[in-house]
Amino acid sequence: MYQSIKMNLNALKNNKIFELIVVSVIIISALEIGAKTFQLTDSAVSLTEILDVFITVFFLFELTIRFIGDDDKRSFLKKGWNVFDTLVVMISLIPIDNSEMALLARLVRIFRVLRMISVVPELRILINSLIKALPQLGYVVLLMFIIFYIYAAFGSFMFSQINPKLWGDIAISMLTLFRVMTFEDWTDIQYETMEVYPYSLIFYLTFIFFTAFAFLNMVIGIVVNVMEEEHQAARAEKVEKQPTLIELQQELKEIKALLMAQNK
Amino acid sequence: MYQSIKMNLNALKNNKIFELIVVSVIIISALEIGAKTFQLTDSAVSLTEILDVFITVFFLFELTIRFIGDDDKRSFLKKGWNVFDTLVVMISLIPIDNSEMALLARLVRIFRVLRMISVVPELRILINSLIKALPQLGYVVLLMFIIFYIYAAFGSFMFSQINPKLWGDIAISMLTLFRVMTFEDWTDIQYETMEVYPYSLIFYLTFIFFTAFAFLNMVIGIVVNVMEEEHQAARAEKVEKQPTLIELQQELKEIKALLMAQNK
Amino acid sequence: MYQSIKMNLNALKNNKIFELIVVSVIIISALEIGAKTFQLTDSAVSLTEILDVFITVFFLFELTIRFIGDDDKRSFLKKGWNVFDTLVVMISLIPIDNSEMALLARLVRIFRVLRMISVVPELRILINSLIKALPQLGYVVLLMFIIFYIYAAFGSFMFSQINPKLWGDIAISMLTLFRVMTFEDWTDIQYETMEVYPYSLIFYLTFIFFTAFAFLNMVIGIVVNVMEEEHQAARAEKVEKQPTLIELQQELKEIKALLMAQNK
Amino acid sequence: MYQSIKMNLNALKNNKIFELIVVSVIIISALEIGAKTFQLTDSAVSLTEILDVFITVFFLFELTIRFIGDDDKRSFLKKGWNVFDTLVVMISLIPIDNSEMALLARLVRIFRVLRMISVVPELRILINSLIKALPQLGYVVLLMFIIFYIYAAFGSFMFSQINPKLWGDIAISMLTLFRVMTFEDWTDIQYETMEVYPYSLIFYLTFIFFTAFAFLNMVIGIVVNVMEEEHQAARAEKVEKQPTLIELQQELKEIKALLMAQNK
Repeated sequence: MYQSIKMNLNALKNNKIFELIVVSVIIISALEIGAKTFQLTDSAVSLTEILDVFITVFFLFELTIRFIGDDDKRSFLKKGWNVFDTLVVMISLIPIDNSEMALLARLVRIFRVLRMISVVPELRILINSLIKALPQLGYVVLLMFIIFYIYAAFGSFMFSQINPKLWGDIAISMLTLFRVMTFEDWTDIQYETMEVYPYSLIFYLTFIFFTAFAFLNMVIGIVVNVMEEEHQAARAEKVEKQPTLIELQQELKEIKALLMAQNK
Repeated sequence: MYQSIKMNLNALKNNKIFELIVVSVIIISALEIGAKTFQLTDSAVSLTEILDVFITVFFLFELTIRFIGDDDKRSFLKKGWNVFDTLVVMISLIPIDNSEMALLARLVRIFRVLRMISVVPELRILINSLIKALPQLGYVVLLMFIIFYIYAAFGSFMFSQINPKLWGDIAISMLTLFRVMTFEDWTDIQYETMEVYPYSLIFYLTFIFFTAFAFLNMVIGIVVNVMEEEHQAARAEKVEKQPTLIELQQELKEIKALLMAQNK
Repeated sequence: MYQSIKMNLNALKNNKIFELIVVSVIIISALEIGAKTFQLTDSAVSLTEILDVFITVFFLFELTIRFIGDDDKRSFLKKGWNVFDTLVVMISLIPIDNSEMALLARLVRIFRVLRMISVVPELRILINSLIKALPQLGYVVLLMFIIFYIYAAFGSFMFSQINPKLWGDIAISMLTLFRVMTFEDWTDIQYETMEVYPYSLIFYLTFIFFTAFAFLNMVIGIVVNVMEEEHQAARAEKVEKQPTLIELQQELKEIKALLMAQNK
Repeated sequence: MYQSIKMNLNALKNNKIFELIVVSVIIISALEIGAKTFQLTDSAVSLTEILDVFITVFFLFELTIRFIGDDDKRSFLKKGWNVFDTLVVMISLIPIDNSEMALLARLVRIFRVLRMISVVPELRILINSLIKALPQLGYVVLLMFIIFYIYAAFGSFMFSQINPKLWGDIAISMLTLFRVMTFEDWTDIQYETMEVYPYSLIFYLTFIFFTAFAFLNMVIGIVVNVMEEEHQAARAEKVEKQPTLIELQQELKEIKALLMAQNK
């Protein structure tokens, strides 16, 4: 009998209408979170509280179905998305009284919106492909970090007296350099240090040049990677359908051998 | 006789000179709209009024020709551009007296400039291809919206006390985050919240990272799509002209069979 | 005898050392223009005046050599770069007395730096390829202009009362919209109009969306064009070296015909 | 015996654990530099001084190993990275007393972080490929410089009276134009000159257009270059594995010759 329940739940889990209901509840949950940021009447507040309980119960219910319907219960928590779902649902279950924790509870509830990604397969694929692209960029990111670190150390040694708010220590300097990289009021920062060190403009211009160059390199790296994969997929497909030139050459050799045999 | 009129009008509709006249009237209409934004003398104002009547009548006349010249009158309004043209012309016909509506009438007349797109085929193709590219981006846009929504909810929970004008509710917060995304005075917003929560810089840096990454992904997605289409068009063209390797293999097999028969 | 002079001058024109001297004089001319923007001593001023005369004479001399050395004197002025060179040299020859014209003369001399492009072949090729890419972008630019025009007309109708300096007439509005497109203090403009029309944010967001989309399309258009050309060049090269599949098929058919003849 | 030491040191040099230790010391060196930018207690200051001595000695030791372990001592200093390493280590050895030099010594120590690039092979490859890409961009950079120079000369002739801080001489003007190119408060600069010369907006708009166009061209140039290399690498790989069409044609010709001989 357990087996039949499991199969029914598994069928339910993969049912399109069930998926739609789950997505709807996530959207309601998102709207409720959004509504809470506005000034609400008392009746609206009590409505959100009822909704909150309903959503928590529904998510618990849905997670249970997923768990029972899963074939391999041991590896259930080995999948990243399942762990994420379980955590979000579990933390929602903790009863909250004091006001400090109330804010935390609110913040945790925001992550329910992220369940949209774990439920909609297309979004899950998108995120997975983004994560897969990250390690390839590792060394470019490391290079960029080294550039930032050297310039930040240089900046805080030279300019910390001029404006400690911007160049006080290496951490603040790195934030300031990130600001320079986004071109946000970077000339204000530059004019300030140029009054003391007129040649500090070389500092800014080389920094902008190096980061822009490294960033460009990163973008091109991603584009080339993506295209390479597309091409290889296209080639793999081609290979299946069409004989290769090697196969044709083999055929020709066999024909030649036959003719040789005739001529003897 | 109606048939001959229809054919004449159809010929007129596709006539290059007629198209040029229509484009000219649209340009005059655009210039008239532009002229109205300047301070005008009384005589110039009355000139624009006469022009206005002339343009309205000409557009009505042109639309009538198009409708009569069309072979399939039932599906005339099924084409998006025809519906757009008809709407713009019809609304211009409504007589306007009171001043409230006068502004609205002016605004509707601006859309006449968009008729340039419905009349010039090259622009129509361009817009159609842009619209076709949109649905492919659907999931990336959804992902970006989820990122915005979560950060906006977080921002309005945490920072609404610090500056209600920027973080008052989730809608205002989303606008503020869009501003951060465009790097427009984003450090002012950041320094303000960093005074209360020094670690709020993580909020901004991760947000910029995620949106930049998703945006980059979108751009690359479009580039790859466009190139894929180009390649497939190129391949399709190639296939027509050139025999495939399969066909060559077939020929070789036939030759081999012939030789086999000889050797027996 | 004229013929031999012509040949000598033609040889001189294409001489690497002569080219180097011309480039050097252009660089000196550029440095002289740059030096004039600084506060100069009297002796330095008289030096620049002597230099000026020398450069003018040298350019006249060089242009004469080019003209005499050219094989086809009639089509000499049909080449854009020659016309440009002649104009720059001729205008430098006009004697200037009154101070009004002195500024103009200075400005014309700046264009001498552009001669660098007409003299260095690699730069000329670069510029020519840029100019060749422009017409392909014609319709995207037209589309962008229509978007700007419609939004500017809308903006000056609605917001001219709020801030005439930004939205006074359609020309000023287009400049303001270009500013919005570069994200330069665009939120200041937006907050100002949002106080009167809270929904004007839709105006700005849709404008940013449309222009960014059209701009992206333009960039992709250029990239795809450039790559297409590269691919076609690569393919053209391939075709020369390698037999096509059609030729192979032809060979196979001939072989089959031979075998058929044998079997009869 | 020297030979065996050399071999041992060479083995050590290429040892993964040794590389890891070197990288760790570089990271410690980087952290020490970062720590110095914060306010430190007396004990922490003396700790950094001890660390400093240790790092200097370690780097000297490591460089010695590399030098002894190298097969070709004469060309040791011909490799850019070795020169860089030697310089950084040598300058650290100079004893510093007076305070003026202390700052310089600190700055030189920052460059130790760059040793990360000379030690980690992947980063070295990345930097080398970036440097290799630079010369190809030479002419586009030259073109951009010419555009900057002409506009800066024009700007300082026309606007130096309006705001000498921005347009005083050609060098300052070029910095101002770079600011305009990054869109940083460029409208402030523009509105200022537009009060005197209303048509100066053409100056800014054309400048933005030309630099954006040249920049775009540079980016596309890099992308196309990178892809070309990828394609050629892919083609080269293909050629190794697969027979070319020419080879197939050769085989067919041989078969035909055999058949011809039979038919005679």
